[in-house]
Amino acid sequence: MPDLTLHGYWRSSAAWRVRIALALKGLPYATVAHDLRTGAQAAAAYRACNPQGLVPALDTGEGQEAPLTQSLAIIEWLEETQAQPALLPADPLGRARVRAMAQVIACDVHPLGNLRVLKALRGDLGADEAQVAAWLARWMGDGFAALETMVAQWGGAFAFGDAPGLADCCLVPQIYAARRFGVGLGAYPRLVAIDARCAGLAAFAMAHPAAQADADPS
Amino acid sequence: MPDLTLHGYWRSSAAWRVRIALALKGLPYATVAHDLRTGAQAAAAYRACNPQGLVPALDTGEGQEAPLTQSLAIIEWLEETQAQPALLPADPLGRARVRAMAQVIACDVHPLGNLRVLKALRGDLGADEAQVAAWLARWMGDGFAALETMVAQWGGAFAFGDAPGLADCCLVPQIYAARRFGVGLGAYPRLVAIDARCAGLAAFAMAHPAAQADADPS
Repeated sequence: MPDLTLHGYWRSSAAWRVRIALALKGLPYATVAHDLRTGAQAAAAYRACNPQGLVPALDTGEGQEAPLTQSLAIIEWLEETQAQPALLPADPLGRARVRAMAQVIACDVHPLGNLRVLKALRGDLGADEAQVAAWLARWMGDGFAALETMVAQWGGAFAFGDAPGLADCCLVPQIYAARRFGVGLGAYPRLVAIDARCAGLAAFAMAHPAAQADADPS
Repeated sequence: MPDLTLHGYWRSSAAWRVRIALALKGLPYATVAHDLRTGAQAAAAYRACNPQGLVPALDTGEGQEAPLTQSLAIIEWLEETQAQPALLPADPLGRARVRAMAQVIACDVHPLGNLRVLKALRGDLGADEAQVAAWLARWMGDGFAALETMVAQWGGAFAFGDAPGLADCCLVPQIYAARRFGVGLGAYPRLVAIDARCAGLAAFAMAHPAAQADADPS
């Protein structure tokens, strides 16, 4: 595999998903940090390579005209170009289950709670902090409740079966976000147990926000 | 392929994506309608088969304990079990481009404008109609602007190349939503042209909300 470069931000959930996938597959990569708090990701130079002005983006090092974008598309590309260890099961039904769990988070939870949306709630709609907290708790709660049921059906040591995969790449950053924003997790013991199990793996530890060069918990 | 049953709603963007994919692949299917306006999709009987209480869900007719959920996961399953006509290109890079375009809509645009979110904006945050319109225009505009650039790079007659695929399945319902909510499309001539080209295909016509048995434009 050529030299990979990940455009990210230490606390971006979506970039973190890709870091986990890269680490699980044992792929080395360089990083370029874009500080979402200052809007650095919207700069013209970065938009020229990612028209959304969002992280993550992955430069594959193969001379493409633009890096890959969208965390789940990037992880599927990793899966298709570096098959082992697999982040998706081999059978179509299992793959559909794992993708659905990942998309509960990536399509129905995370988009409603990321930084640009919280800024809009506060700035454009005048939401106060209690309203923002209730907003976050509602969407995270809906998603976690569904995931807890799905994990009961198909999970094991991890979200699907007994090996970490795509669904865990999405779950762990979302659990971190829940704790950061004070969203209760007491109703989701399976999700909390999986998160704890992931935390014990070297790949997840390497990918954690606190382990990134641009981490700034101030 | 066994008998497929799609749980949907005529005007759900996500269910519409799956209808397009089924029609492009020429697969027959039965439908079960859930009226999102009355909250029918949240009923206990339906939640027992889809813990999110959202549409779409696809019963594969193969006796699984629960139908498939999440529109993009369902379409990937269709692609893996009924390969032709393909909705994704054959090469990993092309597949990543198409998935990224689909996810611009499915992860960064549509989640912020669906019915449950608009209800929350009005009901929980007291947003008035002008604020809701501005909210919708902002996220759709951001996504469409990025897609217009991506289509300029990789599109042809359709969003990626010259055959309809996964990105078009997502684009067409989002363009319909833009028109429905009065979001201007003048800055996105490539997207509008692709939408018009899709409208001329029988598969897209069959999948259109107005062609569904539960359509109720009152």
